[in-house]
Amino acid sequence: MTQNPPAILPSRIAHAGLRQKIMSADAAAALIHHGDHVGMSGFTGAGYPKLVPQALARHIQQQHNAGHEFRIGLWTGASTAPELDGALAKVGGMDMRLPYQSDPTCRARINAGDMAYTDIHLSHVAQYVWFGFLGKLNVAVIEVAGILEDGRLIPATSVGNNKTWLDQADKVILEVNHGHPLALEGMHDIYYGTERPPHRKPIPMTDAGDRIGTPYLHCDPAKVIAVVETNLPDRDTRFAAPDEASRRIAGHLMDFFQNEVQQGRLPEDLLPLQSGVGNIANAVLESLNDGPFSGLQGYTEVLQDGMLALLKSGKMRMASSTAISLSAEVMKEFVENLDFYRERIVLRPQEISNHPEVIRRLGLIAMNGMIEADLYGNVNSTHVMGTRIMNGIGGSGDFARNAYLSIFMTPSTAKGGSISCIVPMVSHVDHTEHDVQIVVTEQGLADLRGLSPRQRSRLIIERCAHPDFRPALLDYVERSEANAKAGHAGMHTPHLLEEALSWHARYEQTGTMLPR
Amino acid sequence: MTQNPPAILPSRIAHAGLRQKIMSADAAAALIHHGDHVGMSGFTGAGYPKLVPQALARHIQQQHNAGHEFRIGLWTGASTAPELDGALAKVGGMDMRLPYQSDPTCRARINAGDMAYTDIHLSHVAQYVWFGFLGKLNVAVIEVAGILEDGRLIPATSVGNNKTWLDQADKVILEVNHGHPLALEGMHDIYYGTERPPHRKPIPMTDAGDRIGTPYLHCDPAKVIAVVETNLPDRDTRFAAPDEASRRIAGHLMDFFQNEVQQGRLPEDLLPLQSGVGNIANAVLESLNDGPFSGLQGYTEVLQDGMLALLKSGKMRMASSTAISLSAEVMKEFVENLDFYRERIVLRPQEISNHPEVIRRLGLIAMNGMIEADLYGNVNSTHVMGTRIMNGIGGSGDFARNAYLSIFMTPSTAKGGSISCIVPMVSHVDHTEHDVQIVVTEQGLADLRGLSPRQRSRLIIERCAHPDFRPALLDYVERSEANAKAGHAGMHTPHLLEEALSWHARYEQTGTMLPR
Repeated sequence: MTQNPPAILPSRIAHAGLRQKIMSADAAAALIHHGDHVGMSGFTGAGYPKLVPQALARHIQQQHNAGHEFRIGLWTGASTAPELDGALAKVGGMDMRLPYQSDPTCRARINAGDMAYTDIHLSHVAQYVWFGFLGKLNVAVIEVAGILEDGRLIPATSVGNNKTWLDQADKVILEVNHGHPLALEGMHDIYYGTERPPHRKPIPMTDAGDRIGTPYLHCDPAKVIAVVETNLPDRDTRFAAPDEASRRIAGHLMDFFQNEVQQGRLPEDLLPLQSGVGNIANAVLESLNDGPFSGLQGYTEVLQDGMLALLKSGKMRMASSTAISLSAEVMKEFVENLDFYRERIVLRPQEISNHPEVIRRLGLIAMNGMIEADLYGNVNSTHVMGTRIMNGIGGSGDFARNAYLSIFMTPSTAKGGSISCIVPMVSHVDHTEHDVQIVVTEQGLADLRGLSPRQRSRLIIERCAHPDFRPALLDYVERSEANAKAGHAGMHTPHLLEEALSWHARYEQTGTMLPR
Repeated sequence: MTQNPPAILPSRIAHAGLRQKIMSADAAAALIHHGDHVGMSGFTGAGYPKLVPQALARHIQQQHNAGHEFRIGLWTGASTAPELDGALAKVGGMDMRLPYQSDPTCRARINAGDMAYTDIHLSHVAQYVWFGFLGKLNVAVIEVAGILEDGRLIPATSVGNNKTWLDQADKVILEVNHGHPLALEGMHDIYYGTERPPHRKPIPMTDAGDRIGTPYLHCDPAKVIAVVETNLPDRDTRFAAPDEASRRIAGHLMDFFQNEVQQGRLPEDLLPLQSGVGNIANAVLESLNDGPFSGLQGYTEVLQDGMLALLKSGKMRMASSTAISLSAEVMKEFVENLDFYRERIVLRPQEISNHPEVIRRLGLIAMNGMIEADLYGNVNSTHVMGTRIMNGIGGSGDFARNAYLSIFMTPSTAKGGSISCIVPMVSHVDHTEHDVQIVVTEQGLADLRGLSPRQRSRLIIERCAHPDFRPALLDYVERSEANAKAGHAGMHTPHLLEEALSWHARYEQTGTMLPR
């Protein structure tokens, strides 16, 4: 993480007035004040500012050392990187963070009670700011690939909430990253047709590849208080080679898709795919690359290695996303073939990539990871043992609620088999029984569509639970039903209230959910 | 509940071929078979078939008496009435019910484990049937106000899923109810522009009052196997005069709305109002009639007495709904002034009244009742003590997730003060912390927008909990936080897992949530 200013390439900053505002990251960071709400770019480790946040962290540390309070409220698109969330969390520089994070230092601070974290559906964030629900945005810090002569901005590898931050902030700091290929120009589609109610119009999109906006971000140059030059790569988002569990999950899904096509419930080219972050999602995309389906489309919030491979092979004809989050190796291939990918990728604001209206219209196949599911199909995506935040809900709610098919995936166990990811009752609910259609583990796939709670519980145990935990789950179900049959509870969703969360409590106490 | 056939008024059944198919309810009911999926009309006690379901119940009872199995799967719009859900539940005639019910007999059967119930977001139902997710629809039984010469149908007091049932069923039974005013003609707006993905287009609506379809339901006369004439009123949906708690809840909301207007977060004529079923919702509408706001609009799934009063007074200029569910007294006023109301009310299919796309575009103020909320803003709308279904989620998820403002209301206690409606952890989750912005009880209003879980917990206790339960709630929060601070759990959403549901368990055991 060098602090050396890169060589100035005037073509990257073609606006004469903004060239006048070039300064060091430290000088720019000094323009941010204690108590400010700061909107930064960045979505799943792509397109986040690389130097100003670290300079701000140093500034904050100096202020703290001098006995001065200094904390900001930090809003982003989604997760960023150690240079942003990590640096600011390390110095205790945030009193509030939203809407999604995945940084270890930041997570530790939140779970220690040192900072507040507000976990929001990603499609809700921009409009909440427009509505005034989160207070005034003071400063925007946005990474871009370049600045045109007239001040329009070439976005970087993510769009996220940048449009909203640029529009809503009083002051703007731009980081121009010379490390991004200028050939990104034209890949983005920034839709400026959103309004506040009652002035909203239909979003004119009927295909994942539709372009409905402009390739550039608009920004009033008068609001720009600093331009900082950088030359640093995005986070290297590496994926593990698919393990046996991931391969089996992917295999169950391929079988399911083939059957759905045979039954006439899916077209032969499926429907646009949404794929969450992580290794399992990536493994599913790899399987699709080896599978029988072609003419695929992607409509997702983050485009990872697996989806780029589908585009490269020609299995996928078009992908829409708000961020490109690749391993360094695949990023190289992406940059070298940008002319190819620019025809096949559209990067949009996250209020569009995650918009319920568009998701429902296009009819997505939504595939997201989870921490645990319960007998009745409720899903916990965010909390370890009900109290510790892992990352956040991200876009999973936007997609699951509005998708054509809502799929949640996890290995059946975690921590070497000591945790069952199928539990009597989830310790936190992010997706209710009403939003979960398909649950998949390496053990199998449970198709919950149209089933009542008690029909679901037997199927989930039989298909998805690990054999080590099946007897205890069945025992819980049978005793819950007997208790209800005896008139002590209802048979609609039988539970033993005093025991429902006991598996989690046992894990906290003994290090395993397995009964002694 | 007379079985006497009404006088035949030929003008109600103007299609010659369909006149040939007039028969008794018993003859029509005999055309329904064991194992059939039957889609019936009806939404919140409006526009349900009045005679065929009772005839079917008699037929089922005869079959059962003769030792034959006979159960149907029953799909509706939402809740119906004793003549439908009650009659069929009484004879054990349903093996599966969806998507919403509120009938005491039906509820008892579900909670006894005698029948399956699948609780689905109301906006999801029609598309699930179109997608083939729920299997084949065999028979539709639809109440209408009349049949035109060309076979088009004048809908009755609800639209619900009738369009989908008529399109998707193999066979159709029509109940023509002479008791509905023919002047209903023209009030409905049936949108035939929906498609399955990937062929969906934007729904061309930008105002609650827009008409985008036709006033009539289409139905292939060749599919009609029976026409039954009736002359019976809808369920008399009576409202209690607002009690003190309801009036105080309404008062807190009026103050909140006024402040939101002052802060520039709501326009002076507010935004379209969605109002759930029940006495509290009705009390809020009554308060609006006495309040400072005018030029109001409604965009809701069920139009009750309170909203009709707003239209009558001129405070509300337009209301959209899928059902009109009135007390008998107000129904009389409605019928006598149909020319007035036809200009101000649009009745739509529930896939449109509850469509996420339209709800989000219009920017609704969504106001729904609940059973309980927890410290962190999770809401239980459906389950008593976690296991017994009350009614169902209905449209509350469609509205809460996509609204401009998502408001949940309840008195702070139930059952004479023995139940706290603010609990440490809800016993069932229908609306997660991500979807709940405002919680209101007679004690006060908690504005949760932008707050982290721990910020929420203090506010909800202070503003919404009943004083009898505040100390125990605070004690739970403090001990949860101490436990987390000691490293035994996370401080993001502190809980004591073994105690989180103990209030509900105590109620089951002792009849009160109050600690001894």
